[in-house]
Amino acid sequence: MLDKFRDECGVFGIFGHPEAANLSYLGLYALQHRGQESCGIVSSDGHKLRTHKGMGLVADVFKNDAVFQDLPGSSAIGHVRYSTAGGNDLKNAQPIVVDYARGSIAVAHNGNLVNAQEVRNDLETRGSIFSTTADTEVIIHLLAHARSDSLIDRVTEALQIVKGAYSLVFLTETRMVAVRDPHGFRPLILGKLDGAYIVASETCALDLIEAEFIREIEPGEMILVDKSGLKSFRPFAKVPTAACIFELIYFARPDSRIFGHQVYSVRKEFGRQLAREHGVEADVVIPIPDSGTPAAIGYAEETGIPFQLGLIRNHYVGRTFIEPQQSIRHFGVKIKLNPVRDEIEGKRVVVIDDSIVRGTTARKIIKMIRNAGAREIHMRISSPPTSFPCYYGIDTPTRKELISSSHTVEEINRYITADTLGYLSQEGMLKAAGACLGEEGKFCHACFSGQYPVKFPRLKSDSQLGLF
Amino acid sequence: MLDKFRDECGVFGIFGHPEAANLSYLGLYALQHRGQESCGIVSSDGHKLRTHKGMGLVADVFKNDAVFQDLPGSSAIGHVRYSTAGGNDLKNAQPIVVDYARGSIAVAHNGNLVNAQEVRNDLETRGSIFSTTADTEVIIHLLAHARSDSLIDRVTEALQIVKGAYSLVFLTETRMVAVRDPHGFRPLILGKLDGAYIVASETCALDLIEAEFIREIEPGEMILVDKSGLKSFRPFAKVPTAACIFELIYFARPDSRIFGHQVYSVRKEFGRQLAREHGVEADVVIPIPDSGTPAAIGYAEETGIPFQLGLIRNHYVGRTFIEPQQSIRHFGVKIKLNPVRDEIEGKRVVVIDDSIVRGTTARKIIKMIRNAGAREIHMRISSPPTSFPCYYGIDTPTRKELISSSHTVEEINRYITADTLGYLSQEGMLKAAGACLGEEGKFCHACFSGQYPVKFPRLKSDSQLGLF
Amino acid sequence: MLDKFRDECGVFGIFGHPEAANLSYLGLYALQHRGQESCGIVSSDGHKLRTHKGMGLVADVFKNDAVFQDLPGSSAIGHVRYSTAGGNDLKNAQPIVVDYARGSIAVAHNGNLVNAQEVRNDLETRGSIFSTTADTEVIIHLLAHARSDSLIDRVTEALQIVKGAYSLVFLTETRMVAVRDPHGFRPLILGKLDGAYIVASETCALDLIEAEFIREIEPGEMILVDKSGLKSFRPFAKVPTAACIFELIYFARPDSRIFGHQVYSVRKEFGRQLAREHGVEADVVIPIPDSGTPAAIGYAEETGIPFQLGLIRNHYVGRTFIEPQQSIRHFGVKIKLNPVRDEIEGKRVVVIDDSIVRGTTARKIIKMIRNAGAREIHMRISSPPTSFPCYYGIDTPTRKELISSSHTVEEINRYITADTLGYLSQEGMLKAAGACLGEEGKFCHACFSGQYPVKFPRLKSDSQLGLF
Amino acid sequence: MLDKFRDECGVFGIFGHPEAANLSYLGLYALQHRGQESCGIVSSDGHKLRTHKGMGLVADVFKNDAVFQDLPGSSAIGHVRYSTAGGNDLKNAQPIVVDYARGSIAVAHNGNLVNAQEVRNDLETRGSIFSTTADTEVIIHLLAHARSDSLIDRVTEALQIVKGAYSLVFLTETRMVAVRDPHGFRPLILGKLDGAYIVASETCALDLIEAEFIREIEPGEMILVDKSGLKSFRPFAKVPTAACIFELIYFARPDSRIFGHQVYSVRKEFGRQLAREHGVEADVVIPIPDSGTPAAIGYAEETGIPFQLGLIRNHYVGRTFIEPQQSIRHFGVKIKLNPVRDEIEGKRVVVIDDSIVRGTTARKIIKMIRNAGAREIHMRISSPPTSFPCYYGIDTPTRKELISSSHTVEEINRYITADTLGYLSQEGMLKAAGACLGEEGKFCHACFSGQYPVKFPRLKSDSQLGLF
Repeated sequence: MLDKFRDECGVFGIFGHPEAANLSYLGLYALQHRGQESCGIVSSDGHKLRTHKGMGLVADVFKNDAVFQDLPGSSAIGHVRYSTAGGNDLKNAQPIVVDYARGSIAVAHNGNLVNAQEVRNDLETRGSIFSTTADTEVIIHLLAHARSDSLIDRVTEALQIVKGAYSLVFLTETRMVAVRDPHGFRPLILGKLDGAYIVASETCALDLIEAEFIREIEPGEMILVDKSGLKSFRPFAKVPTAACIFELIYFARPDSRIFGHQVYSVRKEFGRQLAREHGVEADVVIPIPDSGTPAAIGYAEETGIPFQLGLIRNHYVGRTFIEPQQSIRHFGVKIKLNPVRDEIEGKRVVVIDDSIVRGTTARKIIKMIRNAGAREIHMRISSPPTSFPCYYGIDTPTRKELISSSHTVEEINRYITADTLGYLSQEGMLKAAGACLGEEGKFCHACFSGQYPVKFPRLKSDSQLGLF
Repeated sequence: MLDKFRDECGVFGIFGHPEAANLSYLGLYALQHRGQESCGIVSSDGHKLRTHKGMGLVADVFKNDAVFQDLPGSSAIGHVRYSTAGGNDLKNAQPIVVDYARGSIAVAHNGNLVNAQEVRNDLETRGSIFSTTADTEVIIHLLAHARSDSLIDRVTEALQIVKGAYSLVFLTETRMVAVRDPHGFRPLILGKLDGAYIVASETCALDLIEAEFIREIEPGEMILVDKSGLKSFRPFAKVPTAACIFELIYFARPDSRIFGHQVYSVRKEFGRQLAREHGVEADVVIPIPDSGTPAAIGYAEETGIPFQLGLIRNHYVGRTFIEPQQSIRHFGVKIKLNPVRDEIEGKRVVVIDDSIVRGTTARKIIKMIRNAGAREIHMRISSPPTSFPCYYGIDTPTRKELISSSHTVEEINRYITADTLGYLSQEGMLKAAGACLGEEGKFCHACFSGQYPVKFPRLKSDSQLGLF
Repeated sequence: MLDKFRDECGVFGIFGHPEAANLSYLGLYALQHRGQESCGIVSSDGHKLRTHKGMGLVADVFKNDAVFQDLPGSSAIGHVRYSTAGGNDLKNAQPIVVDYARGSIAVAHNGNLVNAQEVRNDLETRGSIFSTTADTEVIIHLLAHARSDSLIDRVTEALQIVKGAYSLVFLTETRMVAVRDPHGFRPLILGKLDGAYIVASETCALDLIEAEFIREIEPGEMILVDKSGLKSFRPFAKVPTAACIFELIYFARPDSRIFGHQVYSVRKEFGRQLAREHGVEADVVIPIPDSGTPAAIGYAEETGIPFQLGLIRNHYVGRTFIEPQQSIRHFGVKIKLNPVRDEIEGKRVVVIDDSIVRGTTARKIIKMIRNAGAREIHMRISSPPTSFPCYYGIDTPTRKELISSSHTVEEINRYITADTLGYLSQEGMLKAAGACLGEEGKFCHACFSGQYPVKFPRLKSDSQLGLF
Repeated sequence: MLDKFRDECGVFGIFGHPEAANLSYLGLYALQHRGQESCGIVSSDGHKLRTHKGMGLVADVFKNDAVFQDLPGSSAIGHVRYSTAGGNDLKNAQPIVVDYARGSIAVAHNGNLVNAQEVRNDLETRGSIFSTTADTEVIIHLLAHARSDSLIDRVTEALQIVKGAYSLVFLTETRMVAVRDPHGFRPLILGKLDGAYIVASETCALDLIEAEFIREIEPGEMILVDKSGLKSFRPFAKVPTAACIFELIYFARPDSRIFGHQVYSVRKEFGRQLAREHGVEADVVIPIPDSGTPAAIGYAEETGIPFQLGLIRNHYVGRTFIEPQQSIRHFGVKIKLNPVRDEIEGKRVVVIDDSIVRGTTARKIIKMIRNAGAREIHMRISSPPTSFPCYYGIDTPTRKELISSSHTVEEINRYITADTLGYLSQEGMLKAAGACLGEEGKFCHACFSGQYPVKFPRLKSDSQLGLF
């Protein structure tokens, strides 16, 4: 799928391994799809935290081997981030590292707090200063103000004040703490390598470094790792789980397992269910690569229509939201995709994508397929219409930009110029992911249903919310 | 397919379009897979040739828009290149541009001359000096020494001396000439946009700029484009065609049409034929992405075994021969590929790739699939064993490194540790590509058969040849 | 003079000029000698502060014109800094910008607080977190905790807690505040351009932008500039002035006027006084360029011995503490200086420098002059022996490294191998600068006399202080 | 002196030293003032030439130590160059390296051939191709066409065809050849280090690497260095010497000795002679740094008026013709120079510079000095009016731009707004340099006198020549 949602972040942590920084680098490399604009690693040698952060891809920020000599120690945490504002936003790069009364602490955060501004206002009134615009800094301040004696209690004290989505990894000189918010919006995985504990946003980070997958950190669980080993805590009141279903639809890598699912297989099942709901007579099923591919395979399997790679992706284009140069902008999707004419010409084509945001890209692709000689084009989307913005860590377009928030499927189809258009139903989506609509818990599907599991203040300044 | 052959080059030319340099940039962008180490564009405004060349990818060398202001004019040629030697090899970047008695001339070359050294020795004896190590420079010298009055005759005079593979584009202040060698080893395509003639190595370059495909330039054909239009010449004696079948197997983009074939469809047919020759009972067919994918789809279609993307490719790794950083080298293929465990665990897996070079990568991938829980692994290769080096423009490993040149299929299989291994036969390959073994012409299959269509001198200094 | 003391910082501020950021850039460019490792500018458009900071020289960090479009508004402050630690110290680059209860505030600081660690400990106990290792961050925290209603009162409240040297410029959305500490250790100048008020560390910044010099900001004075104009405050108890005499000896640019002196002329007077104290019969006076030049001219004038540029400086070497490449390191001063043999050979040479730190450089230069054929070499230093470290903002070597702190003049001379060595006396230095030893105030000469005007805690962790 | 003439080039060569490339780097570093836009080194290990060239300063092009590992061998030659055209002119960077019938050869050239175009036309007619626009390439072609058996004879054969200025260093796999043209326009020095012979444009290159100065290579002399030692040849007919006097006035470093002179001392003597010719009553003599400094010292010595550094140069500005950023362009000389007000205010000031080109810079400096409060300003120039362009290797402005070629001294003075203006006379200049006007030989003073020692063709396309 092209030009769509932006992953917010990926986190990684490792405790007790002589190559902590190097393995964090590799872990972040595997999580690169979760954030491409900045990244960083903080290591501890037991006495002192050291940081290297920068704007850009992991392979670029850490391209100089010397960097790793400046990150000694056997524990480290890392972060990849999509920064929402342009320009020099290095100050918002994570992990954030600070000194406070108990020493130094670093934090890496995936998610979004819905009451960050309120808490920030309170803290400022008490004399706190803020160096970044990230909601994560609020957590650090709360931690510094916490009065409990133990680190776990202080983290708990701080997190009891904030609301929203967070998968967090903290590093102090001598300890690592990982927490997943009570709803479990974002994934967080526990693994092990050579006796060292590892946490990561997705299992693909474990795979790359050949670490063993232990289990997922559970919603509301807090893990403390220090030299005496790993301890698990449950400091929060139990609430229904609300795992972000969009991770399964689009964000996570298909080779990852999160929320108890192999992502690839769920996507394929979305495609199968889509076929059951919106079957059509056709000659070929083609995906919009690469995000539409597993669903297209599922659709083809269910219908028996042959699957073909009818659109070839240019390997030299980065992920879709990395814009090409000014001068070639008007070439739009052509710079990224090109049809295989022989597989399309004269045929009835089912085109599978995982979602439609503004509709402009889908429209261009359909035109491209039409020009390649398709007789009929049936667009099928392996998720329901995305009508509501996310407040839990996904940088969705505003409602104004989401074509589904103001147009019917019929209208959208007219705009994108397909012969027919079918979306996966909410029920079908949840069923394919092993859950039921109406049932409490398991998934957050607010972006489709508008049912937000955690309430949030109506901020005047936020144009997204102005629509409600 | 990973870490294999290196494309030698891609060429592009356009005559008579106000955005000549810009379109050349886009054309090279589409041809990037044919050469990633250096690139360049030469433009003409009717009076003067201007050049911009650099080491690196097209998007990097031309990232500054200002570059295009230094490339004015309505005609331009461009080149992407894989440079064989490391270090600062900018001097070998093409197009090569020189001044000579008739003015200025630029040339972009895809292919390899087998008698370059001999001709070079002759020329040096006559007082010529050489600034590059590229065989292309020989052509320029011959052109400068040619005595004929017309450009076409001079080009002919020069090319009658050289032997081997060449798809060439020349640019002078006022004319463009494109030639394909008599055997037609390398592809060369003719297109048109807004009245301007275009030549390119593959049709994908036309597609990106939305140019119309006219036809392929034929083996032995020479095209002259100037302000009075296009003229075609046949200055060479007719010889059997010898189009490089490896272009269809690996090099060309699947969305391109070359040698009269849609590349994707031929690759799928290779997979079908492979299934006919080496069928096996299995649960799933998975490709080694991306080069093995079309053949895997064909294999799955023919056998009815489900096709799955069982290996996920990391999008942030460049094409396979671009080495990752030193520090992560030992992670080998893991940095590039990761298995989808649920689609492999407990299953009998057919793994499809387009070729095996040294066998080391295949061995690692099979180990990775085995670790993901495969019950059986059947490796199938959609081309015959590659036992002979290429002398016509593909940078193959030496015979010593080609595992097939010294090992039987049985031995190779023992090395890569698959349960079974099957290669497409030479007959099957040719049949799938619409030709027959033994029949004169159509394809060069020397890398498989050792039957070299153009003889070459036995150079003492060339270790590749020492084996013969 | 080579490889010596490191300037700590330079500050600049402008309020009420449409080209605020651009003029700040030029101001910092003129102050570059005060700090070469990082720099930054913060601008305000009346509503929002915007920042651009980076490691490196001003001309490099701001080399892209687009940067200035991201710094809109009619007020701005800037900073150049020498960062004491290596590596990625961007987090310590200034101006520091934070959000707090009253909005946003930025600060640029030249100087050093002697009780920063104590105050920081207090603040941390109260829940403050620290993002940098700079003492400046302490001031920001104190400001955020201050309870007064007006900005001036809050700044006063904050500064009454800290001790030491500070010339500070603050910028809020709508106001600029400049303060010089009660002792006036560091310079701070007030100027005006097109109706806009300007503050800067030295007058050379005013000269470059053709601003008018108004007066120096006085020790203990606080200036507030907003849309209603400039107001001056005197919030601190009066204490004796302690202007850093090393600014006159080495740091400030000779074309600047600070502390009521033209720097060039004072340096020349140091040279004249040095001649009175340590005259010698000789044929030529040569400076160690460029810092020794004015004193050498003064020495030559007073003695009547001809002045010559006997050592030529390589213009392509940066300021002396910017190390050349590893591979040429052993060439030491030769890479920077080369003798003019004809002006030295067979002559009795007086060599003038402004100070001697470790003695190693002086030793090499004397050897170089000896090799060029000098008959006698008389080294003369235009300041007294530097025996004590500075705690007010100059990054002096530790006592261990200061050759004068543990060796007599005689011993030093034996080490550097001159024929004779003479230092300017403390009395002579003060007299030349228009002050007297013993008299309270005017100058801080602690690095020569050990008389520290502001007491400081004996920090165990500070190896410099371990010597006391 | 600011914004004036551009040095054309500097050359360096060393034969028989294990650190040949490293020492070449240092030699070029010392010769950086002779060319700042590109540089390069070619080394030989006895079998193969290897090259590293790039755009930019020596310290930047060779900043990576790894570069030197790619330049093995005990002989090397190097070049610094000012490239006349903007943009990507890397193709013109030297040394030029080619392969020809006898092996490989590299050449570095300082000077300019006046019949390059004619010879090039001849060569092209014979089938030669040209890759650069440098006249040096002509020499290489002639060398390749030469039929003699020995290298010395071939070089002689080639050089007998060209006319003009050349100090050349050639390197083959096993030999180094250095030649100075019969007139000896450009300097070329012979030195020795650890038994290895060295040639360089100026002695400052020897000084830096602590090599011994042996002697200058004489006009018309050719030196061959190989493993059997050094041999000297005199292959050309004797003609009068015509050493470029502008080297003494402006180009060469003051610490160098060329043409039998210490440059600094000659410049001081120019100043003394200038005082004799154009004395004036004044309070202070100040140079325009740095090129005017030695002459100012001489002027002050002769007149007894005190010398002061009344204009301070910003060390962070590169050599004068390296333009600052667009946005600060209008600040002109202020970005480079700032007056020391106390040394100027109320005084009668003599300002010394080495030359005036367009007059615009002098005009701005005089305005700056006037603004600093000077009572009178007497401009004195330590060379005669520069009225004629150079054809022997100095990139002078065209006659149109040379203010002296069309204006009297009186007119120039009105334009630059000094109170009085005085130029050194041609007779005075020659006398100070130990020669006489009218006398045959020693110096070329064509840029002052229009007496060109070597005739040149009147090229229609050359706008400079259009004026004659």
